[in-house]
Amino acid sequence: MPTLGTIAVRVRYCECDPMGVAHHAAYVPWFEMGRTELLRASGLSYAALERAGVLLAIVRLDARYKRPARYDDLLELTTRVVGLSRVKIEHEYELRLLERTDGTAHAPGELLATASTTLACIDRDGRPAALPAWLAGDGVG
Amino acid sequence: MPTLGTIAVRVRYCECDPMGVAHHAAYVPWFEMGRTELLRASGLSYAALERAGVLLAIVRLDARYKRPARYDDLLELTTRVVGLSRVKIEHEYELRLLERTDGTAHAPGELLATASTTLACIDRDGRPAALPAWLAGDGVG
Amino acid sequence: MPTLGTIAVRVRYCECDPMGVAHHAAYVPWFEMGRTELLRASGLSYAALERAGVLLAIVRLDARYKRPARYDDLLELTTRVVGLSRVKIEHEYELRLLERTDGTAHAPGELLATASTTLACIDRDGRPAALPAWLAGDGVG
Amino acid sequence: MPTLGTIAVRVRYCECDPMGVAHHAAYVPWFEMGRTELLRASGLSYAALERAGVLLAIVRLDARYKRPARYDDLLELTTRVVGLSRVKIEHEYELRLLERTDGTAHAPGELLATASTTLACIDRDGRPAALPAWLAGDGVG
Repeated sequence: MPTLGTIAVRVRYCECDPMGVAHHAAYVPWFEMGRTELLRASGLSYAALERAGVLLAIVRLDARYKRPARYDDLLELTTRVVGLSRVKIEHEYELRLLERTDGTAHAPGELLATASTTLACIDRDGRPAALPAWLAGDGVG
Repeated sequence: MPTLGTIAVRVRYCECDPMGVAHHAAYVPWFEMGRTELLRASGLSYAALERAGVLLAIVRLDARYKRPARYDDLLELTTRVVGLSRVKIEHEYELRLLERTDGTAHAPGELLATASTTLACIDRDGRPAALPAWLAGDGVG
Repeated sequence: MPTLGTIAVRVRYCECDPMGVAHHAAYVPWFEMGRTELLRASGLSYAALERAGVLLAIVRLDARYKRPARYDDLLELTTRVVGLSRVKIEHEYELRLLERTDGTAHAPGELLATASTTLACIDRDGRPAALPAWLAGDGVG
Repeated sequence: MPTLGTIAVRVRYCECDPMGVAHHAAYVPWFEMGRTELLRASGLSYAALERAGVLLAIVRLDARYKRPARYDDLLELTTRVVGLSRVKIEHEYELRLLERTDGTAHAPGELLATASTTLACIDRDGRPAALPAWLAGDGVG
């Protein structure tokens, strides 16, 4: 299973606030998209996983905002699995600026934010459950 | 069952966009909140309704944006049932400015937006279903 | 200037509601993304336009929801300019299902929703303004 | 200036995900609302502050999700200033369940989540700035 992946994110207008920058809450779904695409690269969709009764609930989120992202920025999010136990997965994230379109000066590759999250595996009734063996098996981290 | 209700809405920072006004997508959940509270005033929560297998899916939304709402504005939303058949409910909405806090001039009571929606009753598998008798029974509209 | 464009949209987890389908408010930013990419195809970003003091405010939104979109669905949104005056732009939208990943049966190409919007050109103080000549000039519709 | 405040939050339908619980990204605006109302209790709106050129940008967010919040839950958020320097403010948050309306068993007062954030004061160009004296002056924490 791949333990690192990158996705491109285009900042939506509705994700930006009156300061003209992406609101800090908007980053949280981007991290989730990073996890989703990392899982897809392993050959499975989270949609199928959830349909099979395996749910992943977030129990911790830590985000550091270093530089603002602006409307229409093209960003690159790198997602990495840094810990994996029988019941939890830990990810780390790096969000970088790829391209800015509003005509202002910018530094491509600049680090905008970092984050880490912990997910816990639960069943449909919200009780802790073991991760599927194929997901937990190789003992990364 | 009451067919008209009002709620107060405080505009959240994250609902505002780089123009410094509430993004047009933010109004859509407010209309939903208006419907929820109107239902609650009839003695039932939509949460309980859904738990009983009665789902209301939106099939049409028409919104007219007349004047911008700003961050931290206190708004008044009036929601009205204007049509009710065995399988559908139609609502109309008026959104007015109650109070503006950023120190700029404003006209309390000013009409900011109007909207109308149509909801269809469906079951858990997404098939059309009849509205519960107590909800559809009095033939408003 | 191109008057028709298509974009792909992947339904985010956070855009879906307890019915397991995309919430109707989530479609509204997708329509905006369709407009943004249609403008970009003409060689200009909306970010640059806004930086030049040309703002486009939505005054009307009409959406028809026909079939639900589900988490992780890959959708195709077609955006079309259907009217253009000195101060307003009208768009129409068709949202279709391209690919479903949760293992359930589906009909690729199925029409999920249609919509239309009207945008008005305003200046930074919210006053009506004329569209830039290059945008309004060719008199589509 | 008060350094502790509580607000009530009603969980919106659109804030809930296919697991039937509030999506973890939805909590982030609630924390912001807690800060806004704490500031208002000191006699000033953040809207007026921003209008005066004083912007508060989040630089760190740490959230711990303990128990899910459900659609239509009435929650109580307690926000506390725990640190205050010339350029930064630190807050801590506790989110508790007040009332659940879907008919399922629940424990009123149950702790659902905790969080902490750090805000930095910036000017309109995004440069670090000193907090207004009245805000920073009393040296809490």
